[in-house]
Amino acid sequence: MRKTFLLLLAAMFVTNSYAEEKWTSLFNGKNLRGWKVMNGKAEFKVINGVIVGTTKRNTPNTFLATTKNYGDFILELEFMVDNGLNSGIQFRSNSLKTYRNGTVHGYQFEIDPSDRAWTGGIYDEQRRGWLYDMENNPSAKTAYKPAEWNKVRIEAIGNNIRTYVNGIPCADIVDETTASGFIALQVHGIGSNGKEGQNVRFRNIRIMTEDLLVNSWNTPDKVIPQLNCMDNKLTEREEADGWKLLFDGKTSTGWRGAKMATFPTKGWIIEDGVLKISKSDGRESANAGDIVTVDKYSEFELVVDFLITEGANSGIKYYVDCDLNKGEGSAIGCEYQILDDEKHPDAKLGVKGNRTLASLYDLIPAIQNKPFKGVGTWNRARIVAKGNKIEHWLNGVLCVSYERNTQMWRALVAYSKYKNWPNFGEMEYGNILLQDHGDEVWFKNIKIKDLKNQ
Amino acid sequence: MRKTFLLLLAAMFVTNSYAEEKWTSLFNGKNLRGWKVMNGKAEFKVINGVIVGTTKRNTPNTFLATTKNYGDFILELEFMVDNGLNSGIQFRSNSLKTYRNGTVHGYQFEIDPSDRAWTGGIYDEQRRGWLYDMENNPSAKTAYKPAEWNKVRIEAIGNNIRTYVNGIPCADIVDETTASGFIALQVHGIGSNGKEGQNVRFRNIRIMTEDLLVNSWNTPDKVIPQLNCMDNKLTEREEADGWKLLFDGKTSTGWRGAKMATFPTKGWIIEDGVLKISKSDGRESANAGDIVTVDKYSEFELVVDFLITEGANSGIKYYVDCDLNKGEGSAIGCEYQILDDEKHPDAKLGVKGNRTLASLYDLIPAIQNKPFKGVGTWNRARIVAKGNKIEHWLNGVLCVSYERNTQMWRALVAYSKYKNWPNFGEMEYGNILLQDHGDEVWFKNIKIKDLKNQ
Repeated sequence: MRKTFLLLLAAMFVTNSYAEEKWTSLFNGKNLRGWKVMNGKAEFKVINGVIVGTTKRNTPNTFLATTKNYGDFILELEFMVDNGLNSGIQFRSNSLKTYRNGTVHGYQFEIDPSDRAWTGGIYDEQRRGWLYDMENNPSAKTAYKPAEWNKVRIEAIGNNIRTYVNGIPCADIVDETTASGFIALQVHGIGSNGKEGQNVRFRNIRIMTEDLLVNSWNTPDKVIPQLNCMDNKLTEREEADGWKLLFDGKTSTGWRGAKMATFPTKGWIIEDGVLKISKSDGRESANAGDIVTVDKYSEFELVVDFLITEGANSGIKYYVDCDLNKGEGSAIGCEYQILDDEKHPDAKLGVKGNRTLASLYDLIPAIQNKPFKGVGTWNRARIVAKGNKIEHWLNGVLCVSYERNTQMWRALVAYSKYKNWPNFGEMEYGNILLQDHGDEVWFKNIKIKDLKNQ
Repeated sequence: MRKTFLLLLAAMFVTNSYAEEKWTSLFNGKNLRGWKVMNGKAEFKVINGVIVGTTKRNTPNTFLATTKNYGDFILELEFMVDNGLNSGIQFRSNSLKTYRNGTVHGYQFEIDPSDRAWTGGIYDEQRRGWLYDMENNPSAKTAYKPAEWNKVRIEAIGNNIRTYVNGIPCADIVDETTASGFIALQVHGIGSNGKEGQNVRFRNIRIMTEDLLVNSWNTPDKVIPQLNCMDNKLTEREEADGWKLLFDGKTSTGWRGAKMATFPTKGWIIEDGVLKISKSDGRESANAGDIVTVDKYSEFELVVDFLITEGANSGIKYYVDCDLNKGEGSAIGCEYQILDDEKHPDAKLGVKGNRTLASLYDLIPAIQNKPFKGVGTWNRARIVAKGNKIEHWLNGVLCVSYERNTQMWRALVAYSKYKNWPNFGEMEYGNILLQDHGDEVWFKNIKIKDLKNQ
């Protein structure tokens, strides 16, 4: 059923092309003119009109790269890969002496014949890692056909990159990191013990660089999830969908101190598109103090990327009433806990882990196997509040769900450290808060969608 | 809409009569032949073919009773009552020297022109009080027309009693307390300060005593709720609806000690249709011990009538695992707390009232204003478990609702005294338990409906 639907869609895209398609071949079928080998020592040969790459031990990834650079383009080719061999197609990629001593880096169309089946995903080689793995679009995991020629299409047009495998839309990102670079075919490194002599084959490589918009297959909205890889910027789709940035990457607009009318003059720093709370003495809201949104929110979807330094403690609070706590300490509200569970002692306190990362602080522990990417790395917190139902997500995984304004909620609060705050977590509107807990924590990509009137 | 529907139903009932109706008039329209005044001193007169009763100070309820007794019958009459005056029609009623010195007692068709609007309800005069108040059937509260002649129909056939006001079905009970007695018109006592000279008028009083079943209006199932006023016995409707008695009123069949294979030989007593745990030393399950159902239940509706003595503590547990607690004390499960909140110290312990009557013990407090009828009186506990959603009811009012097998549930349990019992409250099947807490508590009308396969 789903397959039929996808094939139908693919057919629609094909018939959608109405301008003349001006293709240029990148491979003459005879030799590797216009290509050069980079980084590793695996071999590329032309055999019967096919470029054949062969694995070799004790050499890193090897790339057969175009000598020319390409910015906006539509690229098509076919590949066939031996089972067990990972490969990929670089695009808008570069090799710079100033960056990791010439290592090829940039966008890679993933070729992954393993059970994971992420073929068609987009990996940022030697840079940010996965931009779009196929768990984002699992129905397209079956697009790749093992031990057959598979047809690849990559559309890189402006800040939008889309991939297709055998006509099935696979990945879709919006990113602005690199506008131009070479195209390169990968033979993956196999270390010192991998199987030598495995092959990946490429043929019928052609590129279009004109009339791209009219020839784009234009994956429609909602057919596959589009991921925004830009910092502090909304995609057109996000804007149309009602998302608003809570942090513009440059100024403190929209924020104030939790216990003051203006933004704190110390402790909170904005640099390189990142909002940072500086290290002080580890106490709660005792130095720079918490900051809150100027606006209040009722039902919402909130996304915050955060990066914690070793041993750090912070948090994202919602349904905050800044007027409640007149004394010392943080303003009162429901808290998505941000913590280095390994190094901060609070992770061991509380009850059954209800003070660990992504937990509803002091109330509900996050699930066991949280997909935390680690200290010093960006992680994505997501909080969904619809009606009285609340969810805490971490890096795409649901970690906590609960329902406030219920007897269970009040019974649970009555046991917690919030027991004496009247109406805790039950207000209709509250501020969003970022916590100063005296540790250095970074924030970016803070955005919110109002669900109240949807 | 609802009114039209009820009128339509009423019309259906009328056309349903197909046997000849053999009515006998109970009032000749001229004098009170066949009637006698009882108990009070209020006056009854015949004026223009109407019996007029008039209020009088400093006299108790006055009744104008038939000299003849009636068992099974259909009675019809019309009444008109002054605003503010409560009245009623006794039936299957008696006056016995051996019972409260001849006080008229028994079933009363309620006449209630107050805002409460319980006209058509059934009150057990000088005995059990309300058997069927009109909160059980609120849509029929508008059947009574103020300052007009209202038509009453009472059907008393076997153990089933039904009332109608102006053709609208009002009350429906199944009861076996009294099979026969007189019919009597009430002038309510007004004490020493009530308004003298207020009137209640009756006319066109007729009775049928043959071919009752075929002439019955036969209120269909589900049109109005039928209440079971019998002890330890199911109505036909309850049986058809899947209810099972868990206590037959005479034996311990279906029960065993929570920590033994048989029923306890001391402490638990069955007398007069009541299952009683005897007073011992107030300790938890230390003497007779708790009893549990032999069978286990998953999703169910459970009804238990209980009566507590002063200062008593007990409980109804469900999802009980008898094998969990190998040590002293009660078997482990979710507990509908039974407690004299006024006199037992545990009511003040726990957190925010989570150990008071009808609470989920140590977890979720029952609502404030619980409709507890008091110590020494029968109260009805009802527990509904459907899917993971559980409800505690007391005397028809929802006191606790929660959802087990959720993150909130586990977070709440983690704070409670159950924190160290694995899988607390999350099992699919468990026993039902009645607790011995060393205090005298009575139980009857213990019945259950399996909701698992509905």
